[in-house]
Amino acid sequence: MYPLFANKEAIIIVVDVLRATSAICTALHHGVERMIPVAGLDEARKYKDLGYLVAAERNAVKQEGFDFGNSPFHYMDEQVKGKTIVISTTNGTQAIEAAKDASVIAIGSFLNLSALAEWILPQERDVIILCAGWKNKFNLEDSLFAGALANKLIDSGNFSTMCDSTIAAGYLYERASDDLYGFLEYSSHRKRLKNLHLEDDIRYCLSTDIMQTIPVYQDGGLVSAQKIVVL
Amino acid sequence: MYPLFANKEAIIIVVDVLRATSAICTALHHGVERMIPVAGLDEARKYKDLGYLVAAERNAVKQEGFDFGNSPFHYMDEQVKGKTIVISTTNGTQAIEAAKDASVIAIGSFLNLSALAEWILPQERDVIILCAGWKNKFNLEDSLFAGALANKLIDSGNFSTMCDSTIAAGYLYERASDDLYGFLEYSSHRKRLKNLHLEDDIRYCLSTDIMQTIPVYQDGGLVSAQKIVVL
Repeated sequence: MYPLFANKEAIIIVVDVLRATSAICTALHHGVERMIPVAGLDEARKYKDLGYLVAAERNAVKQEGFDFGNSPFHYMDEQVKGKTIVISTTNGTQAIEAAKDASVIAIGSFLNLSALAEWILPQERDVIILCAGWKNKFNLEDSLFAGALANKLIDSGNFSTMCDSTIAAGYLYERASDDLYGFLEYSSHRKRLKNLHLEDDIRYCLSTDIMQTIPVYQDGGLVSAQKIVVL
Repeated sequence: MYPLFANKEAIIIVVDVLRATSAICTALHHGVERMIPVAGLDEARKYKDLGYLVAAERNAVKQEGFDFGNSPFHYMDEQVKGKTIVISTTNGTQAIEAAKDASVIAIGSFLNLSALAEWILPQERDVIILCAGWKNKFNLEDSLFAGALANKLIDSGNFSTMCDSTIAAGYLYERASDDLYGFLEYSSHRKRLKNLHLEDDIRYCLSTDIMQTIPVYQDGGLVSAQKIVVL
């Protein structure tokens, strides 16, 4: 879908709530210096051979021979501090790849929702929320996040126009916001992760506003956006 | 999107509520014998040269040199009775073209919503609701219809599984069903049609259950499904 909406001047927010973008936010929040997203496993293996730490997940499962999967809990360890980690996931890193020509790309998750809105507003740019979905299909959790972020931006009064999918996502979030976990009970990916006993991951990924970290894409890697402090 | 879900054994319901599929339902309801959907205007012109009645619409406007646009009101005249009409529209006929290898294709609109659900149920097949959208993008009105139809099928108890987009469409319809016209106030296509003073068309297309007609695709054309009457 992204090529239909591509706009190099816009801020692209890449979203794969369960779990890639939640894992990336968590990793940078816990001190990972840089994450290099790669779309293919072959490329991930090349980095592994060069001695990098590499995360690789397909169909919700950590791939054999790599260091991490895409559970956020893999990135909370003191040992990741200051490290560069290469990451390849089923959907999230493909979405980053699709958007990589844009001038501003950031990573969104419920974990950094409000911080992200505050970071977006002063930039006065259009915003494209790019939901990774599941293998090019719509998914509920990413659309819920898109609705949450869109509603925040629209409530600011600085965003006036939007497309039909933004309107729909906003309504969906309104319906779900009291109980995101319950709302997702019948969603395809929650079922998929439940079968893998990853309910703790889901609950964590649906925690809202637990960090200020904004991962941004710079020179081929994701790093924490510099905070601007006015003294 | 259709190729991601393609299933030749499923019933494909093609939906372009504003206005192509509402026009097709209306035309067959008012006695048009057969409508031949064609994707391209060149092909439509060839039929015109052969002496056919031809409807052609692009960007909500009837195209010069053709007999009809895609306003349902064009097809209520006694003169259309028993006729074959070729039709090419911006989105709707492209969607029929995309699905034409499926074994069962029918045309959906709010006008024939309940009749369609009753026609689907005894067939015991999977159902794919193919929303034409607007130039490959999501639109609200087709998703609302998809939600309305999906909810009816699920309420029957005969459909148990569904994908995330079906769940989302169902919620969206629940939110909108009290006032479809008001809900669509900010939708992109309602604005587009409003600028063309087509509000009567919109109100008509959002009328629910005003006919029993089910257009089905057979041998390259759309005809009314035969009613089965048990005496």
